[in-house]
Amino acid sequence: MIEAEAQRIGLHTERDVAANLVATLPGLEDHLPFIACGSHVDSVPQGGNFDGAAGVIAALTVMRRLKAVNAPLRRTIKLYALRGEESARFGKPYLGSSCLFGKLTPSDLDTKAENDGRQLRDCMRGVGIDVDRIAAHEVLLDPKSVAAWVELHIEQGPVLAARNLPIGIVTGIRGNIRHRAVECIGQAGHSGAVPRWLRHDAVFGMCELITHLDAHWRTLLERGHDLVLTSGIVATDAKVNAIARIPELVRFAFEVRSQSKATLDAAYELFLSECAAVSKERGVTFRFDEKVEAAGAAMDKEWVERLTASAASLHLPSEAIASGAGHDAAVFANAGVPSAMIFVRNQNGSHNPREAMDLPDLIAGIDVMHAAIREAAMQ
Amino acid sequence: MIEAEAQRIGLHTERDVAANLVATLPGLEDHLPFIACGSHVDSVPQGGNFDGAAGVIAALTVMRRLKAVNAPLRRTIKLYALRGEESARFGKPYLGSSCLFGKLTPSDLDTKAENDGRQLRDCMRGVGIDVDRIAAHEVLLDPKSVAAWVELHIEQGPVLAARNLPIGIVTGIRGNIRHRAVECIGQAGHSGAVPRWLRHDAVFGMCELITHLDAHWRTLLERGHDLVLTSGIVATDAKVNAIARIPELVRFAFEVRSQSKATLDAAYELFLSECAAVSKERGVTFRFDEKVEAAGAAMDKEWVERLTASAASLHLPSEAIASGAGHDAAVFANAGVPSAMIFVRNQNGSHNPREAMDLPDLIAGIDVMHAAIREAAMQ
Repeated sequence: MIEAEAQRIGLHTERDVAANLVATLPGLEDHLPFIACGSHVDSVPQGGNFDGAAGVIAALTVMRRLKAVNAPLRRTIKLYALRGEESARFGKPYLGSSCLFGKLTPSDLDTKAENDGRQLRDCMRGVGIDVDRIAAHEVLLDPKSVAAWVELHIEQGPVLAARNLPIGIVTGIRGNIRHRAVECIGQAGHSGAVPRWLRHDAVFGMCELITHLDAHWRTLLERGHDLVLTSGIVATDAKVNAIARIPELVRFAFEVRSQSKATLDAAYELFLSECAAVSKERGVTFRFDEKVEAAGAAMDKEWVERLTASAASLHLPSEAIASGAGHDAAVFANAGVPSAMIFVRNQNGSHNPREAMDLPDLIAGIDVMHAAIREAAMQ
Repeated sequence: MIEAEAQRIGLHTERDVAANLVATLPGLEDHLPFIACGSHVDSVPQGGNFDGAAGVIAALTVMRRLKAVNAPLRRTIKLYALRGEESARFGKPYLGSSCLFGKLTPSDLDTKAENDGRQLRDCMRGVGIDVDRIAAHEVLLDPKSVAAWVELHIEQGPVLAARNLPIGIVTGIRGNIRHRAVECIGQAGHSGAVPRWLRHDAVFGMCELITHLDAHWRTLLERGHDLVLTSGIVATDAKVNAIARIPELVRFAFEVRSQSKATLDAAYELFLSECAAVSKERGVTFRFDEKVEAAGAAMDKEWVERLTASAASLHLPSEAIASGAGHDAAVFANAGVPSAMIFVRNQNGSHNPREAMDLPDLIAGIDVMHAAIREAAMQ
């Protein structure tokens, strides 16, 4: 459907080596790096209509407008409709963009689908992808050949709705540090028979830790740092816990996210030192499972300014906003391509069937994207 | 074995209507209320050797000593080896003592055993109990006929061991107020995409609540109130929780215990008002399941003084101590019988196979019990 529409408006279409759909609007000067735009075409199970798709439609609309007026573009513009960003079947996200920069590992390619157990490499081969080239880490798209990656996406948080603004200009994609299950270990005892001065209560220890971290979080925000902090999974040991038993164990997930690697590392150090303080105060110990880190990505400063200026010139209010979720834009940015994102206000959150977007908001985002790409393609 | 030993030392033995073993050392004045002593003969699965049994042995030893010297006792002394205090099969504790005072309900008697599903009434009939009289709430033991209930028991907490004292004189048995599962309800969201000012994090709400309650607890203790506070079960919703999902729900158990009904009620009010404060601060709500209350029991002041004086006269250090766990003594006390308990220091905690007691500590407890009962039986 995307391909047919692209052809209808006069764009050349093809599949790249990773089977992403690419539609091209040629510029006048072939030797200049081109501007890439688009988003992904998959979503999650029970996802909504806008995650990914809105960004592909936006890119197509921008190119249709430029084509319609025969804008004298120096640079070529290419639309990418990327595969497997959510990759719900395989769990390895950003497949389409990662392939372009030779970033998939053999173990990624061995991953089996959750539904039918088929290997990723076999599924990729099935849609015509030359898996040998992917496996060889071949760089299919030279970052130097790309002047920019511009992606419009539905906001997956509530900020724009809460601020009553149609669009946001993304400053960066937050990286994160995680532990799947930290254990706070105390000492079991009869809940009635052990007085406070003899207790080593794992739950009280964890609660004090999180409450301290929450206070630090507030302070760091007030000092201008970008940070979110979550413990999404918490549980005492269901095999032995009881109302009348002082809990000797509680497991909890830990996650910090920030656009800044320095803030991320500082928040993690703060976490470790608060664990040590609670340990000392309460006679509990903390046991840490594997620390997992995911790099963030800064959006290109020049592009953030260009998009902000475009919004201003169109008299559209906008907001500088961090992306908490990951996006293909992070893969482009970390491959060295100057990257930019526009967020569009969402109703009812994202990754659920009730996900919604007001058409005027989407059009506002497209207008800003159009103005910025047109300007950049002229240069 | 208890019965054989009781007979060997010259005591009259019988089974009462509730099939408790009763051994009698007659006093000179039949019309005076008698002194009852003893404990229970069951324990929990994987329980130790001392829970209950030590108190029966202690009572038997006291009576053997008094009998051996033909002490001129005015009052009769009776040993009770009580049934079903833990009542691990049926979950309804204090069966033997509750029967004596007509405190079992029809629904208690309908309870089915956890292992074979037999009803409590059938099992009771099987050991020769006249269940009809129990069901009719007949008071089998007139509280006015009993001058006192005196029970020695292994301490089920770590206080005496931590204080390096052989015995404690129990001042009261803590009552409690409980909720099995309070729910803190917030709002789910992407852990990366929702900033702090838009969060309604159920886990952070619960942690703040518990940390506040812990601070109140410390303050109340410093002001001399008796209180313990526990949340033994804590869990987010395993069906939906995830590292990258702000938790919209956490369930937690709540328990406060105190010897003082007033302190218990005040602590509960504090709990409710802190829930309201956290709700307001964080935009979360608390949903409360059934509030369950268990009455505590004060030990008889005169008997506490007598036991304390007996210990002092024997140059034995002792400690005034609260019982966090329930005991048959609470049933006697709440039926109107002046009641008293002596705790003996334990090693390795109670309700586990490693439960242990030093023989000199047990003998110290028996010596105090002997002196106090001898004095009271003379009066």
